[in-house]
Amino acid sequence: MSDLSRFSINQMTVKQLTLPELTESCVRLGIGGVGLWREPVQAHGVEAAAKLVRDAGLTVTSLCRGGFFTAIDPAERARALADNRAAIDESATLGTDTLVLVSGGLPRGSRDLAGARERIADALSELGPYAQERGVRLAIEPLHPMYASDRCVVSTLTQALDLAERFPSSQVGVVVDTYHIWWDDTAPAAVARAGASGRIHAFQLADWTTPLPAGVLNGRGQIGDGSIDMREWRERVAAAGYRGWVEVELFNEGLWARDGAEVLEETAARYAQFVL
Amino acid sequence: MSDLSRFSINQMTVKQLTLPELTESCVRLGIGGVGLWREPVQAHGVEAAAKLVRDAGLTVTSLCRGGFFTAIDPAERARALADNRAAIDESATLGTDTLVLVSGGLPRGSRDLAGARERIADALSELGPYAQERGVRLAIEPLHPMYASDRCVVSTLTQALDLAERFPSSQVGVVVDTYHIWWDDTAPAAVARAGASGRIHAFQLADWTTPLPAGVLNGRGQIGDGSIDMREWRERVAAAGYRGWVEVELFNEGLWARDGAEVLEETAARYAQFVL
Repeated sequence: MSDLSRFSINQMTVKQLTLPELTESCVRLGIGGVGLWREPVQAHGVEAAAKLVRDAGLTVTSLCRGGFFTAIDPAERARALADNRAAIDESATLGTDTLVLVSGGLPRGSRDLAGARERIADALSELGPYAQERGVRLAIEPLHPMYASDRCVVSTLTQALDLAERFPSSQVGVVVDTYHIWWDDTAPAAVARAGASGRIHAFQLADWTTPLPAGVLNGRGQIGDGSIDMREWRERVAAAGYRGWVEVELFNEGLWARDGAEVLEETAARYAQFVL
Repeated sequence: MSDLSRFSINQMTVKQLTLPELTESCVRLGIGGVGLWREPVQAHGVEAAAKLVRDAGLTVTSLCRGGFFTAIDPAERARALADNRAAIDESATLGTDTLVLVSGGLPRGSRDLAGARERIADALSELGPYAQERGVRLAIEPLHPMYASDRCVVSTLTQALDLAERFPSSQVGVVVDTYHIWWDDTAPAAVARAGASGRIHAFQLADWTTPLPAGVLNGRGQIGDGSIDMREWRERVAAAGYRGWVEVELFNEGLWARDGAEVLEETAARYAQFVL
């Protein structure tokens, strides 16, 4: 039996499973951690979802996602902040200490990356204390540079840390996700820096496979299928002092078309083979 | 009449035009520079192509492309070096001083980015003197990180410079291409560094538009259609001391489906509107 004691499955990897099905499969396979998403949790009911995973003995390793902080329009900004407070509340209800943030892309018609990044800092300064009071840490996820215009102007781990370090580590940290940063030769130093200040709030895995599909959203490869040395990344975050969960988060049309329980079992096996 | 005195059209932008058609259109529109590609030049005949553009009074601002240096297999490496010597010879025949290098991706099954990058340096040390003797400079083009596994393990301008600076600037420099580096907040400092050592060997423009097409190769946006502040980048390379050509290189199925001469005229107009 492989050691799955730190393995967590992100719900999106097997989104064809209902929350009860996911919970049941995790218990059956000896998987102790799940990363959840707001939409399916809300569909099930937040309180009911919290009870379901708690009764099953699962740890909610993260909630995805808050963020989208780059709007200029004041009403739109106010809506984003309110929605993020709700996401923090939901994190607390679910018993997770980590809310993953996808920061947002450029507003329509804007070419001002630096300005967009600065508006993220503004939002964090409002949300950080609110999160801390509820025992939730905000985790800035740098997304691959191919998402810089439309999803996330934070493209490197260094940029994420530059933002996070303006705030206490109890409020704001980062997500280390192999899919987004594997190509970056400055990322290893950034991992060490993040670890030294206690800011690695989540560690997520997905493999890099090509060709990328249109829209480049749903081509994240199963662990072991692509170009990323997973073991090296696990050792890297461990050397930086990270002792938390290792969460596999795949967006992949091919995996979604298959039996969800089978994909979950395969993913756990790949974790044992390529990560441990 | 707009000032097109530094505007160069890369042949790939209007690949539906034959070389004689391209030459004729450039002369008619007052465009003085063309960036050429090896395959269409070879199809026309290298000597004949050189005479055609020379007789038309055009400057060949660059030749694309050499590179693909990351193979491990010795026979494959020898073939790559021979092919790059041929590309250098062709550059000299065409009268251009700049050969653009796309360095190559990971060999099949490899996950060793650092090793691949080191093999590029090995190749440059063999090719640099050969190029210099023929009056040709090798220009390392960092490609967007979304190409790191399958096309180019050099993903940032800083990485390209780290490689180039191991050699004399008369042998090896870099390409600054907005499409590949626009998202990178460390790129402005790298541009200044490249300029200070005389290593900006080419400056290319393409705009960033989404959604990206499948395979992410042919979605480079027409100037002005996307997220990149072109004027800011032109001023940035100028501040770094660059006084050379500004070459527009677009790979775009939509543009290729249109009348080539019309696309050329539109591209020159966009240059005047968004770059000057």
